[in-house]
Amino acid sequence: MYFKINRNYFIDELSKCNRIIDYKNPVPACTGILIEVETDKISIVSTNSSVSIKTSTYANQHDLEIKEAGIFLIRGKNFIEILKRMEDEIISLNKVETNIITLSGNKSEFLLNVLEHTDFPTILFKEEGVFFEVYGSELKKGMNQTIISVNEWNQKIVLQGLNFLAEANNFYITGTDGFRVSRKLISLESSVIEKVTANVPFKSVFEIIKVIDDKQMIKIIVHDNLISIRSKDTIIQSTLLEGQFPDVNGVFPTDFNSTIFVENKTFYKLISRADIPSEENTSTVVNFVLDGDVISIKSNIQQIGSFEEEFKDFELRGIDDQNIYFNSKFILDSLRSFETKIIEISFIDSKTPIVIASSEDTSLSQIILPMFSN
Amino acid sequence: MYFKINRNYFIDELSKCNRIIDYKNPVPACTGILIEVETDKISIVSTNSSVSIKTSTYANQHDLEIKEAGIFLIRGKNFIEILKRMEDEIISLNKVETNIITLSGNKSEFLLNVLEHTDFPTILFKEEGVFFEVYGSELKKGMNQTIISVNEWNQKIVLQGLNFLAEANNFYITGTDGFRVSRKLISLESSVIEKVTANVPFKSVFEIIKVIDDKQMIKIIVHDNLISIRSKDTIIQSTLLEGQFPDVNGVFPTDFNSTIFVENKTFYKLISRADIPSEENTSTVVNFVLDGDVISIKSNIQQIGSFEEEFKDFELRGIDDQNIYFNSKFILDSLRSFETKIIEISFIDSKTPIVIASSEDTSLSQIILPMFSN
Repeated sequence: MYFKINRNYFIDELSKCNRIIDYKNPVPACTGILIEVETDKISIVSTNSSVSIKTSTYANQHDLEIKEAGIFLIRGKNFIEILKRMEDEIISLNKVETNIITLSGNKSEFLLNVLEHTDFPTILFKEEGVFFEVYGSELKKGMNQTIISVNEWNQKIVLQGLNFLAEANNFYITGTDGFRVSRKLISLESSVIEKVTANVPFKSVFEIIKVIDDKQMIKIIVHDNLISIRSKDTIIQSTLLEGQFPDVNGVFPTDFNSTIFVENKTFYKLISRADIPSEENTSTVVNFVLDGDVISIKSNIQQIGSFEEEFKDFELRGIDDQNIYFNSKFILDSLRSFETKIIEISFIDSKTPIVIASSEDTSLSQIILPMFSN
Repeated sequence: MYFKINRNYFIDELSKCNRIIDYKNPVPACTGILIEVETDKISIVSTNSSVSIKTSTYANQHDLEIKEAGIFLIRGKNFIEILKRMEDEIISLNKVETNIITLSGNKSEFLLNVLEHTDFPTILFKEEGVFFEVYGSELKKGMNQTIISVNEWNQKIVLQGLNFLAEANNFYITGTDGFRVSRKLISLESSVIEKVTANVPFKSVFEIIKVIDDKQMIKIIVHDNLISIRSKDTIIQSTLLEGQFPDVNGVFPTDFNSTIFVENKTFYKLISRADIPSEENTSTVVNFVLDGDVISIKSNIQQIGSFEEEFKDFELRGIDDQNIYFNSKFILDSLRSFETKIIEISFIDSKTPIVIASSEDTSLSQIILPMFSN
């Protein structure tokens, strides 16, 4: 095994793979990064119990020059740190003995011990299965906007992640903890041949977000209990959560009694004041009272104190009379998920879920159940 | 009690005081910030077992308008967080009941519970004692450059902090852990009337660094077992470590056999490569070999691997033959403490301390004992 490669690029690719490694795993080989050198490309592979990543670099890209094929397994953390402290643009890696590689720059040379690569688990990256394609930036944004409603430790296992549902030209990403629902709709350029659904675990969602490239078209393949997210050079594959994700379409109210239009930023700051900080970091119950042209926001936390503010900077469609209680955190999470200037909050009554949406971006809806407080 | 003040300024002053509070203290009053409102100024006071802070603001400064004198004690963390979420430039505070204050902005109003202020410990801020004056920026820099050699958990209590020694026009700050010494000399504009010495605890050093203002002249008063660091509006006072600080003057070698002149940045990067990263984050033993016009740096860490690099970018005065072993961390800490471009490393032999200094800034010296390795 002998190759040369651009140092900074190599660090980036190794870092992608290093991120998912579970260093608490007692099997040393499982904490390694596998580097497979073929005649025309090198592949870097890592895995943990639910997610695996493979990135490939082809000869003549990123100064990659392959002189001899081979394979080695190395503990990622130290290896990346050593590479970072070097100053050379191009570095070379050479296997000198079964368990030793040399890492050389212009003047400096490291002799590094490697792990036994045959102990590394065999990973099959799925090529087959129902698939659809979506832009990296859209997928990332949609996941970020919906993961807010997911509780990683939900008692219902199927709710411990995001639901992906693709049918015809529609790709829905949905998250819910039973008290709120976040739903994103992305239109597909090409229809999916058959309806496909997958429940992606909470942790995997964040690994996918970190790895996918904004600017690339991403191919999503679902096969048995695996989802594979592929771009040109990187594949990230995750196990799925078992179970039937609830049909949330029925939850979405449609006929509202009141809708208020507010500037997102202003309303966010108002609710953040009502979210009185406390030692226990619990969320606050916020009372929202719409009465004529005034909204009163009230809250109180035992031991700390109470808050009250009147707010008039809104437009109203419908009835000017609502009195409703909310969890401050749910509202703040929802408001943060919108990048638009104006948001619309729609009410039926004090017992029915409210919907937060924006006509500037209709792809996203957030639903929150009110609280039966006081 | 009733006053108005600029919100951002108030947050800054409260944050200074909040930083030292030990929230693990089981006595609620000890986790509070005391706000004393007099007719012409307000003072904000906080304390922990070793450090106390008092900042004062005078009427008509920072929009301070005092309508009624009074006093209250409040838990700092929540109070600051609430103030941060407000948007008003000026806020007003008003005691409405014995244990309740109102915090009001333009539209929003908080009713906040306060702590029993009579439970707050009485703190005497020393005005008397031997004193000397030094610029805030110089004091800060000197403390940062010397604290690197201090081990907070040193078995010798007197070494668990920095030694301040002022005599005539010289102010020395010294730190040592027994394996290395950092010494800074600051020239005083006015002589101190008698020799004064104080051992400032490790934690207090960092609190002082955070609180003192770069641009102000700082008055340092030592009295019994307390040191008081005063600027115009802020006093920070700390208890001192007991014991006789060792006389380190004797440790400083003077006649060297070899001195190398190197670019600090380049040499730092070289040693950081030799400091091979490992799981245990232990420092590495680095072998420095000077032979003719080449310096070889070698190191190795069991299980990870070894490093070797040759280095020629230096000038030499004296004998071109040295072979010496060091703790990588000690060298890196020392090099980082210099802001100068070129540093000088002076050697006698493999058993005598080396001195790192710079003719661009002669106020700072770092001494490191070599290791008797291999």
